[in-house]
Amino acid sequence: MIRWEESPGGPVLTLLDQTRLPAEEVRLVCADVPALVRAIQTLAVRGAPLLGIAGAYGVALAAARGRDAEEAATLLERSRPTAVNLAYGVRLAADAWRASAGEGAERAAGAALAAARELHRRDAEASSAMAGHGLALLDELLPGGGGHRILTHCNTGALVSGGEGTAFAVALAAHRAGRLRGLWVDETRPLLQGARLTAYEAARNGLPYTLLTDNAAGSLFTAGEVDAVLIGADRIAADGSVANKVGSYPLAVLAKYHRVPFVVVAPTTTIDPGTADGASIVVEQRPGREVTEPPGALGEGLVVAPPGTRAYNPAFDVTPPELVTAIVTEEGVLSPVTGDGIAALCARSRQVTIS
Amino acid sequence: MIRWEESPGGPVLTLLDQTRLPAEEVRLVCADVPALVRAIQTLAVRGAPLLGIAGAYGVALAAARGRDAEEAATLLERSRPTAVNLAYGVRLAADAWRASAGEGAERAAGAALAAARELHRRDAEASSAMAGHGLALLDELLPGGGGHRILTHCNTGALVSGGEGTAFAVALAAHRAGRLRGLWVDETRPLLQGARLTAYEAARNGLPYTLLTDNAAGSLFTAGEVDAVLIGADRIAADGSVANKVGSYPLAVLAKYHRVPFVVVAPTTTIDPGTADGASIVVEQRPGREVTEPPGALGEGLVVAPPGTRAYNPAFDVTPPELVTAIVTEEGVLSPVTGDGIAALCARSRQVTIS
Repeated sequence: MIRWEESPGGPVLTLLDQTRLPAEEVRLVCADVPALVRAIQTLAVRGAPLLGIAGAYGVALAAARGRDAEEAATLLERSRPTAVNLAYGVRLAADAWRASAGEGAERAAGAALAAARELHRRDAEASSAMAGHGLALLDELLPGGGGHRILTHCNTGALVSGGEGTAFAVALAAHRAGRLRGLWVDETRPLLQGARLTAYEAARNGLPYTLLTDNAAGSLFTAGEVDAVLIGADRIAADGSVANKVGSYPLAVLAKYHRVPFVVVAPTTTIDPGTADGASIVVEQRPGREVTEPPGALGEGLVVAPPGTRAYNPAFDVTPPELVTAIVTEEGVLSPVTGDGIAALCARSRQVTIS
Repeated sequence: MIRWEESPGGPVLTLLDQTRLPAEEVRLVCADVPALVRAIQTLAVRGAPLLGIAGAYGVALAAARGRDAEEAATLLERSRPTAVNLAYGVRLAADAWRASAGEGAERAAGAALAAARELHRRDAEASSAMAGHGLALLDELLPGGGGHRILTHCNTGALVSGGEGTAFAVALAAHRAGRLRGLWVDETRPLLQGARLTAYEAARNGLPYTLLTDNAAGSLFTAGEVDAVLIGADRIAADGSVANKVGSYPLAVLAKYHRVPFVVVAPTTTIDPGTADGASIVVEQRPGREVTEPPGALGEGLVVAPPGTRAYNPAFDVTPPELVTAIVTEEGVLSPVTGDGIAALCARSRQVTIS
């Protein structure tokens, strides 16, 4: 859902504005990095893998338009703190640009664009590989023949990926294989990425899905209606701690309590060996207004909480490795989740991805 | 927040319309039982203790206006299934009416009204007693001098009580005693009773409060920011299982995992010895529309989930006794929560309350 396009005024990035879905499919055209940074900060473009691709293309865009690629890289890397893919994509393109800087601006810009395109392509491949590994894992964990009932949180499909996504891609693969009995979609307050985006992707793909408020998930576990939880990740620390959309951690605790597998699906670009553990992950705190003025009320002047109400609004939470049954990457499945396992995965992945 | 008033056309019940808060304080006037049933079903009037009082006054209203009190009782009792207080209040007034039916319609109507007024008064007393017992329990469980940081869910204050409420009344008592360090208010999707009503009551009473989405509570536990969870109840089964607003059970599991006390505050009228256990509690399933069209969007035509999206929308969930640290009633504190303890509490309470 991101495209590099040539226009009369120079190259642009076109993106699907995720804040307008599912009501409208609006294309957002970014002709410079400040516009892309705004799109990232307003969550018009969001989701860890897509942020990485957008970051890389952003550096290429600045370079192609004769702007300062280093400054662009800094701006983009700082636009949101938690998803490590963003920094990864930005650095990949910036490194390519730097390596060719001596050969002239045009070649350097071309190198940055080639790096972005390569990341984009690799993300699509990773998505497909994760779907395969994830489905095999589900079949192994849940050998019954009735099909899998999967609970997911936030949005992890094609909207946020070069391919078909992370956790959602696994559910989609299960559906195509005739082994998805149902997808439970958490609405994912405050920005309703589940209700707005995952339900949209599930409906488009004909999946059997049901929406629920985040706090109704407990009742599903009690009723034995969840066979596995599948989520994505925004950053995986060296010890295997997983930062993901706020609400993931309570699901992990519920899954543990009910002995239901809790599976994280993420490309190895989401692993950050430079972040030692969960406590070291910087969690973005977003404006309280997202909580005090629910989506329907935005711009309508409707009061939901009394004036002056403060809100605690972390965008992410952190799940410790002992609550994660498995991490599914394009390189395979890591289970149990340990620091050594993460290190081995990184070593394998870097050999493949760094050319 | 419910009043029996004489008007030129006969007696009426006036209620504060909870669906309009906090934007507007609108008084709702019910001149007959069908109007009151509508108010109950649309949640204009809600909350276990208030439902009991409203049910009792409803029977008295029908009797005073020469309508069929038995039919009124049936209609009211069936209007919502989970809160046992509603059935309790209705039966109390209906029994009083029946006992005096032989003495003429006017005396029977007077007896029903007296029973409703007595329940109203007793609920206010119970509220005050629970606040005292609850604060003493908090001080005992949390002996540190820094003040209590309490997390609550849904709305349990004066809006739903003849007095100052249940769990909220304890927080209020802690505040007045200078021992409330902070109140964390879950917004409580789908109908946002926390954001709209608890925040409103907290603001009016000058409490230090902060709003959060339900799924952000996990991050507070991880950060060690919650000293105790305090909630109300809609029905307590004979084994000590607690039905309360959906989202209570996930908090109980989180509290257990983090070794934080999980305390239920409810008058003994919420105990239903006729419901054996948690599995026997009928949980109301509400329309999916409450989930697919968040409050701000109501009537605005704003699409939040794609058309045709099904939603799972239980109004309540059930927490088993092993996850409940204590139940605070007007008769004192039950801890640990056991079937025998519940039976003893009922026996004590019936001696006091049945005259």
